[in-house]
Amino acid sequence: MRTLPLSRVYQLIEAGPTVLLTTARKGRANVMTMSWHMMVEFEPPLIACIVSNANYSFEALRATGECVIAIPAAKLARKVVQVGNVSGRDIDKFERAGLTPLPAKRVAAPLVAECFANLECKVVDRRLVGKYCLFILEAVQAWIDPRQKHPKMLHHRGYGRFVVDGALIKIRSSKP
Amino acid sequence: MRTLPLSRVYQLIEAGPTVLLTTARKGRANVMTMSWHMMVEFEPPLIACIVSNANYSFEALRATGECVIAIPAAKLARKVVQVGNVSGRDIDKFERAGLTPLPAKRVAAPLVAECFANLECKVVDRRLVGKYCLFILEAVQAWIDPRQKHPKMLHHRGYGRFVVDGALIKIRSSKP
Repeated sequence: MRTLPLSRVYQLIEAGPTVLLTTARKGRANVMTMSWHMMVEFEPPLIACIVSNANYSFEALRATGECVIAIPAAKLARKVVQVGNVSGRDIDKFERAGLTPLPAKRVAAPLVAECFANLECKVVDRRLVGKYCLFILEAVQAWIDPRQKHPKMLHHRGYGRFVVDGALIKIRSSKP
Repeated sequence: MRTLPLSRVYQLIEAGPTVLLTTARKGRANVMTMSWHMMVEFEPPLIACIVSNANYSFEALRATGECVIAIPAAKLARKVVQVGNVSGRDIDKFERAGLTPLPAKRVAAPLVAECFANLECKVVDRRLVGKYCLFILEAVQAWIDPRQKHPKMLHHRGYGRFVVDGALIKIRSSKP
């Protein structure tokens, strides 16, 4: 993994990828699938996300205030669905899905080795957690896997249907 | 335009499309480009979005509490960038970009005729507007254009670079 400048985090998140979210609590790591997240600020990068209180990850995120957002390329689609279909309450989802947790630098939650980008995050605002399960995170460290060239993101369309990134087009713009 | 069941709104928004956001204030309609938004609740569909207070649309959204989120297909990419590069403070952006405002049913903000989906929205929570310019919207009416078959979404990667939807894949899942 190579450090990704925090100023570039928004270019990953605003594209709307399906991501994995990892947490660690009492020495136990967990991972869930997430599609409800957005950028809030460029730098320091703030990210909002919804983690339902029906998810086992909710309590870990609320208790520890730390997580990792890991972005899988399309080839991981089956693992992404597998992670989304079972609860970490009962099993080790990393092991079940064949995903590899790696130590992060700034948070206790693990990176996901197979993902092409990993964002270490800390919860910075909990005001909307009670009503909407909406957390505001700050990405404090970002990683990119230089071995994965031109990774294609997944975009969830409900019930295991994903659109995979297609062509990249460029149109001259004066705005980020 | 045909009514889209509100229960299906999340399948559009969670895929992470670049969208247009329209407002209307004092008889004047405006449109901006937006990439920072996410689902918050399935039904009634709640959507969070960031509308910077540097944008002319911010004041209109705050004052009226109404907007339309319109989803453009890839063929509208040039118009999307054009809308994003100028301010509605000075010009009629619909006219400039060659986009057609249509009357909405439940809000004063207009639909965008060229977009394949339009979501009429009302602001339902302003608690994070002051700090993050984060609005919580409820989609109260949704429309789909049945003439646009299999529209491809745009996903912004910064500075006018977009990834266009590619292949659709399906993996059996038990979760929405």
